[in-house]
Amino acid sequence: MKLSKLATGLGCRLEGDGTIEIVRVAGIQRAEPGDVTFLTNSRYAADLATTRASAVIVGLTDVVQSTTAALLRSDNPYAAFARAIMMFAQGHSVPPPPGVDRLSAVAPDATIGAGAAIGPFVTIGAGAVIGPRTIVYPNVVIGAGVRIGEYCVIRSHVTIRDRITIGDRVILHDGVVVGSDGFGFARETDGTHLKILQLADVVIEDDVEIGANSTIDRPALGETRIGAGTKIDNLVHIAHGVAIGRRTLLAAQVGIAGSTTLEDRVTLAGQVGVAGHLTLGTGVVATAQTGIPNSVEAGSFVSGYPAIPNRDWLKSSAVFRKLPELRKTLSDLERRLAALEEKMG
Amino acid sequence: MKLSKLATGLGCRLEGDGTIEIVRVAGIQRAEPGDVTFLTNSRYAADLATTRASAVIVGLTDVVQSTTAALLRSDNPYAAFARAIMMFAQGHSVPPPPGVDRLSAVAPDATIGAGAAIGPFVTIGAGAVIGPRTIVYPNVVIGAGVRIGEYCVIRSHVTIRDRITIGDRVILHDGVVVGSDGFGFARETDGTHLKILQLADVVIEDDVEIGANSTIDRPALGETRIGAGTKIDNLVHIAHGVAIGRRTLLAAQVGIAGSTTLEDRVTLAGQVGVAGHLTLGTGVVATAQTGIPNSVEAGSFVSGYPAIPNRDWLKSSAVFRKLPELRKTLSDLERRLAALEEKMG
Amino acid sequence: MKLSKLATGLGCRLEGDGTIEIVRVAGIQRAEPGDVTFLTNSRYAADLATTRASAVIVGLTDVVQSTTAALLRSDNPYAAFARAIMMFAQGHSVPPPPGVDRLSAVAPDATIGAGAAIGPFVTIGAGAVIGPRTIVYPNVVIGAGVRIGEYCVIRSHVTIRDRITIGDRVILHDGVVVGSDGFGFARETDGTHLKILQLADVVIEDDVEIGANSTIDRPALGETRIGAGTKIDNLVHIAHGVAIGRRTLLAAQVGIAGSTTLEDRVTLAGQVGVAGHLTLGTGVVATAQTGIPNSVEAGSFVSGYPAIPNRDWLKSSAVFRKLPELRKTLSDLERRLAALEEKMG
Repeated sequence: MKLSKLATGLGCRLEGDGTIEIVRVAGIQRAEPGDVTFLTNSRYAADLATTRASAVIVGLTDVVQSTTAALLRSDNPYAAFARAIMMFAQGHSVPPPPGVDRLSAVAPDATIGAGAAIGPFVTIGAGAVIGPRTIVYPNVVIGAGVRIGEYCVIRSHVTIRDRITIGDRVILHDGVVVGSDGFGFARETDGTHLKILQLADVVIEDDVEIGANSTIDRPALGETRIGAGTKIDNLVHIAHGVAIGRRTLLAAQVGIAGSTTLEDRVTLAGQVGVAGHLTLGTGVVATAQTGIPNSVEAGSFVSGYPAIPNRDWLKSSAVFRKLPELRKTLSDLERRLAALEEKMG
Repeated sequence: MKLSKLATGLGCRLEGDGTIEIVRVAGIQRAEPGDVTFLTNSRYAADLATTRASAVIVGLTDVVQSTTAALLRSDNPYAAFARAIMMFAQGHSVPPPPGVDRLSAVAPDATIGAGAAIGPFVTIGAGAVIGPRTIVYPNVVIGAGVRIGEYCVIRSHVTIRDRITIGDRVILHDGVVVGSDGFGFARETDGTHLKILQLADVVIEDDVEIGANSTIDRPALGETRIGAGTKIDNLVHIAHGVAIGRRTLLAAQVGIAGSTTLEDRVTLAGQVGVAGHLTLGTGVVATAQTGIPNSVEAGSFVSGYPAIPNRDWLKSSAVFRKLPELRKTLSDLERRLAALEEKMG
Repeated sequence: MKLSKLATGLGCRLEGDGTIEIVRVAGIQRAEPGDVTFLTNSRYAADLATTRASAVIVGLTDVVQSTTAALLRSDNPYAAFARAIMMFAQGHSVPPPPGVDRLSAVAPDATIGAGAAIGPFVTIGAGAVIGPRTIVYPNVVIGAGVRIGEYCVIRSHVTIRDRITIGDRVILHDGVVVGSDGFGFARETDGTHLKILQLADVVIEDDVEIGANSTIDRPALGETRIGAGTKIDNLVHIAHGVAIGRRTLLAAQVGIAGSTTLEDRVTLAGQVGVAGHLTLGTGVVATAQTGIPNSVEAGSFVSGYPAIPNRDWLKSSAVFRKLPELRKTLSDLERRLAALEEKMG
């Protein structure tokens, strides 16, 4: 594709020779002539001078000191990069063909939408509804009464328990479990634990994506809900009765305990843990491994365990490293003061 | 159901109008007239005044200042709530019907107990024994020589490796792996890692429940054992040779390293990690994200990383936030002391 | 087996009666007469005096004060133990028989190597190549164009996405996902997240072992690579574009964020988290739960969050416990100093 045509397709302003032929997208360090690359992380800014790429997607006002590459200027270079990836996709997925594989177990009264594809070794329970053009990969288990919208992608080994509701354009990666029993037990007087039946709803709204082997539990009462446009990474645990708002991002191995609410546009980095029965307000951000034992105000940026404002945590962490030195200084002061006190009588 | 009848069924003392018709269990904030709700978490005490529920399960001596709801007083309100949930279950599961699905692969010499249900795409190995009335959901893989007791529920995509022993009334949620190889390697002189074969036993005792996508490894020697009545949440890792006692509770994403022993009634909150070759005594409790590098005495309540008594950890964490301030105070003192020293000669 | 023969087989120097009959390997505390045991962890040294084992594998120069057991001296006792385990394996696995199970869905143009075994309910996509003598357990899903080498063991419920490359002698435990989409989104101006297609390669080199339910993501560009001889435990998350060197060990529940490089022979203990776009140099070691936000020099030994040298972290952690006491000392000093200052005028 000519670079001028790519610039138009991506909505970028071109600085350079539009007649260059572009054949691939590549990372800035691995790029070769014929490649378009991108710069959205300042960590890689120095690579601009040395990249062999033919073109680089940059911001509208980024100062580029020295590069042999043409520039594609965008008000949102990362989104432009994402679109370039779509235009030059490296390989593709091979989903099951439309229709129902003969080696599947689909209940006679299940409804399979037009153009939907059901792979081999898939079980679909009584009364379930699979929306048009939804793709169900091999070995998926869909319970009775489940409702799945259109254009969803349900990858291999996913379980969707009975009566769960899934919206449109939802992507569930391999091994995701939606609707497993919440971890709820009442301690009996004799010390045994009585299981609290977990049979209420889970609702996954439109445009949600959930990463491989993540688990979303169903509650005893009410519902567990994942809001529209929320993206969840791999190996994340969402407990029973959790409510997650819209456009939230949860990185890998995050865990959210029962009955907690995350409002819209929360961002939790990897391995963050959130205790139960809390509310994280709109736009809360937590850095990796943060442990959150209390509710957090909208707009807060927190770190540490227990979580405190990120700025405070950075400062306290810097002092933490010097604690042995601090203790020594304190001992010295104590000795000097005692000497003075003695001198003064 | 009449409230008076519900009170009798739950073993509660009724305060209020026993002729009210109860149709549902609901959370205290979402409850409507006709609902029974419960108060077991003081966090929600203020909701008692405003709940629209017709009845509330409370403790025998809880002081209820103002509510329009009838009261159901119980010496164990959480267990009474659990029983109420069973009486008004919201929906139900649809297990495979009793018998063996024709799309399964069951070894000719496997024994399937009376009333057991084996779903489609299930593999059962040579000589395996599935107890009476046990339910095996679709796509489960059960190895050769496995013994599973009666009234178990084995959810979709579970793997039970060869020769594992599972007791009665055990629940394994979707994606659980029992008997995967322990992580054991011996470093050779040339730096490569020699695999130590992991072929010894795993025993899951009666009444254990294990959450979705958790993994229980088998050891090279001896056994891995999960004691009767223990409950394990999602995405938990139990390494090879771990011994877990009775009635222990492990919340989501906990990890226990190899050859460690947890005695009875241990409670580990979410994301706790325990190092290998340790013993946690009876009744040990650890708060979320605690890291435990050493054995812990019975009855201890620990937090932090490395784990220390919870009370100490709370106090030290409070000071941690003030470390920058502390350092400044220390600098000030040092300056003032130096001034005094100079003055004194 | 006669002890003398065992000594020869393990390359050990025998001290004691070579005519003893050895029948089993056992842990030092559970061993009985007729057992060989081993001592590689000084934690168990005291058990040497009381073990009932007939023989013990120890180091060449270990001082053994009192034991009734014969000694098998080795320059690598842990590797000798691993070999002894192989010689007396407790039980064995029952893989699917060679050939393709009739209840599988293998694309007509897939290539199944000589002696390979494909179990029931396995899907193999168009053009995939399964190497000679590789074993594929039930319910595995292998995408189109995948290449798997020889002598691999692919356990139940594994997913290998389209076009992934797997070397020789690789072991993937149950529920592993290789090639799930990396967690990559570009934020649009309207606040929604645009999915960045993740279709590039994952390469798993020879002799890699990956634990149950771990997930290895594929990137949009470049590749994710796991180097030869690397061993990964259960529930580990490897993000898109990560490069892991040779002979690295990752314990359970470790998470590595996108585009990070681990050079050779890195060792990360359980629940360690590593941020994105970093480099951990050759031989880096991190203790359990360490959080690594910055690149780490080769040969470093780090702990804590944020990670600092292990030695410093141990010292600072010791002071952390005493922070309340430190604060009190500081207050006392402040008061005494103020008194002195007043006295001096």
